[in-house]
Amino acid sequence: MEHLKEFMEFLSIPSIGTMPEHREDTQRAAEWVKARMEKAGIQDVVIAPTKGNPSVLGKIDSKRADAPTVLIYGHYDVQPPDPLEQWLTPPFEPTVRDGKIFARGATDDKGGVYGAIIGVEECQRQGGLPVNLRFLFEGEEESGSPNLPTLLADYREFLLCDLGLSVDGINVTPEVPGLITALKGACGIEVELSGPAVDQHSGLLGGVIQNPLNAMAHLIAGMKNSQGRITVAGFYDDVLPLTEEERAELAKNPFGTDEYYKELAGVSHLFGEEGYTALENNAARPTLDVNGLWGGFQGQGTKTVIPAKAHCKITCRLVPNQTPEKIVALLTEHVMSHVPVGVRAKVTPLGISAVPYHIPLTHPAVQAVAKVLKALYKTDPVEVRLGGSVPAASALRSVLGADLVTMYTGSPDANVHSPNEFFRLEELEKLRLGIPMLLNELAKVL
Amino acid sequence: MEHLKEFMEFLSIPSIGTMPEHREDTQRAAEWVKARMEKAGIQDVVIAPTKGNPSVLGKIDSKRADAPTVLIYGHYDVQPPDPLEQWLTPPFEPTVRDGKIFARGATDDKGGVYGAIIGVEECQRQGGLPVNLRFLFEGEEESGSPNLPTLLADYREFLLCDLGLSVDGINVTPEVPGLITALKGACGIEVELSGPAVDQHSGLLGGVIQNPLNAMAHLIAGMKNSQGRITVAGFYDDVLPLTEEERAELAKNPFGTDEYYKELAGVSHLFGEEGYTALENNAARPTLDVNGLWGGFQGQGTKTVIPAKAHCKITCRLVPNQTPEKIVALLTEHVMSHVPVGVRAKVTPLGISAVPYHIPLTHPAVQAVAKVLKALYKTDPVEVRLGGSVPAASALRSVLGADLVTMYTGSPDANVHSPNEFFRLEELEKLRLGIPMLLNELAKVL
Repeated sequence: MEHLKEFMEFLSIPSIGTMPEHREDTQRAAEWVKARMEKAGIQDVVIAPTKGNPSVLGKIDSKRADAPTVLIYGHYDVQPPDPLEQWLTPPFEPTVRDGKIFARGATDDKGGVYGAIIGVEECQRQGGLPVNLRFLFEGEEESGSPNLPTLLADYREFLLCDLGLSVDGINVTPEVPGLITALKGACGIEVELSGPAVDQHSGLLGGVIQNPLNAMAHLIAGMKNSQGRITVAGFYDDVLPLTEEERAELAKNPFGTDEYYKELAGVSHLFGEEGYTALENNAARPTLDVNGLWGGFQGQGTKTVIPAKAHCKITCRLVPNQTPEKIVALLTEHVMSHVPVGVRAKVTPLGISAVPYHIPLTHPAVQAVAKVLKALYKTDPVEVRLGGSVPAASALRSVLGADLVTMYTGSPDANVHSPNEFFRLEELEKLRLGIPMLLNELAKVL
Repeated sequence: MEHLKEFMEFLSIPSIGTMPEHREDTQRAAEWVKARMEKAGIQDVVIAPTKGNPSVLGKIDSKRADAPTVLIYGHYDVQPPDPLEQWLTPPFEPTVRDGKIFARGATDDKGGVYGAIIGVEECQRQGGLPVNLRFLFEGEEESGSPNLPTLLADYREFLLCDLGLSVDGINVTPEVPGLITALKGACGIEVELSGPAVDQHSGLLGGVIQNPLNAMAHLIAGMKNSQGRITVAGFYDDVLPLTEEERAELAKNPFGTDEYYKELAGVSHLFGEEGYTALENNAARPTLDVNGLWGGFQGQGTKTVIPAKAHCKITCRLVPNQTPEKIVALLTEHVMSHVPVGVRAKVTPLGISAVPYHIPLTHPAVQAVAKVLKALYKTDPVEVRLGGSVPAASALRSVLGADLVTMYTGSPDANVHSPNEFFRLEELEKLRLGIPMLLNELAKVL
């Protein structure tokens, strides 16, 4: 109950890292994490500033000589809660309903951060740490971790480790754990199309000027065809084609069926790049999605206007060997070379930027995670190539030279990034008990 | 000054007829108009209810025997003021700057309503009314006058007249009056596309489901091609082709140049249906415009989401012999037969509905307007086929059997439907003095 009370306190802080108006809340969340880490006996805890939201760092060493060092990674920032009206209870007033705690960020990723801290406490209680620990809880994961590489470089000595352990991931079902071996890269742009100097009467200037909203529709429609194939020139150039072996391996996943995805999304028909299964598209093919689109009159009733501007936000998920920098350049080039007549385009890269990441299933640390997950869930984990991104994975590898494994107990039905996000109390408990088990396993293989 | 003070009082009422939350303000505006009409000696003034916003009716007869009857038409409802941040002074806090009064509705059409009332006062002061007058000031013009035909039928006896006179129109420039002989029809639909049950994580379900925003872009792009040609099946079937004579006549308009429209809209390039001049497209070809488009995350920063829904509002301007009913049916048919895989579509007709209207230049009442405009502006008026719509025109003809002429002093640079709408004080004065002149001219020809 003490843990639940604390967790709800953490969840009630609206640390929406992507929204400048919540900058202070995000700072408050960082301070909450710092205080809780210190309460757990973690030392040298510091709120490390960045150009954006700060990261909370800390360390605690094992009493054993030459123990290996593990860096635990998670993030305390959360997604915006909109659309608010679809939440049964307010996103920052944590509420428990049949064993689930509902709040924005409950699963992604405050459950990971809090679960790791109390897991480390449990590990000490059980007789001491088998490994040295470093902690990195960042505040910009939902923004694509734009300042993480710089931070890692600035605190390199402090954070040096033999392995990264991420507590930000996802299971296959609430009953079946996922063993994450791949994370997609990510990048994006925002596009603004400008037409008339001000909103214009759709009659007085009808038939005479380009409408930025109609123009935006043409621009977006030109980036992905009706077969789900991305039509931005050069987009697929660097993509490593799926080998027959990989396709066969993926096909073995019992949770990669169309039915699984239909139920997960609540749709009657799936849609993806033609020529690939849903699982292949989700796990191993790049994507392009409009995350936001707006312009003109959105109220009730009618306003017969040709608006001055149209806006959209577009992000892509990347696979080996695509790079965020090149894809942003290709997207920008595509927009600028396809601007409909009569409007002007402005393209701004979004903060999100992650390189695709992969670690072999055979890696001893991955096998250690598998062993612990099996013990926790009483069933073998399923290998997962995540459709999502954790920018820290590639950053840790490039800056600290450390691989990263993931062990997390969140589930795919948890409404992550959606209204009514939740985390199961049993999943928090699994993490609390799983962390000590994993640290002991890692001590053997590192 | 008394007039200015009164006019500002009228302009300060936010009678945004299209927005339900302003229903009471719209009612207040109707009551203001009723009181002001009674002050002007107009009799039997009544606020006539409709299923939407009420109309204000009234009558006053000439002392002369067998005087003809003229119905003065205008509207007291105004467009929504958004985007608010672009107004130099608040839209409902009328402000005078260098001879212009800035406020939403100043030109469209509160200037017409107030100008007509004080014009009728002036006419009485000058020695009595040469014609019987009926008044129809409605509150749903900006909504497309959905309830006007019913109201005209309900009050047929009250409103019977020999001619309608609209004080809702537009000049060619502030110095050159327009003689309006045609008004476009109008209609529209709202489209909602639904995908996943709730907003989804663009990584976890990336590549697997249709994105309603990408789908909406495809749907809209499929309704008008990059040459400005509307591609909705059957859309042009009923359009009367422009004759060579008509094109030659239009070409004579010195204010129909590309430069005129570029300056008016503040654009460097025009865009319209290929094969027609800007003037021809504006005056005599139908249009299709997206007036509003929205879905997903519109805030600052990034939210990597595949939204559950996408929305848009689309309106068309129609020409003889298109009908709103048939075009709405064709638009709906097009949407339902082009729904991208993986989303469901819901189509709702918008309230706006107007039949295209035309009256010959040679009509004696039109010539009477021309004579008065020349006297007021010291220059010949230019014939205008308006790109905009006044649903009352066709409704008056079909229900009351009366033609309608337009005399108004508003200018095309007045930011109608845009931020910083204004009306020139001299334009109000021109209307006040022009109304008596026109009533006397009409008395001769009716």
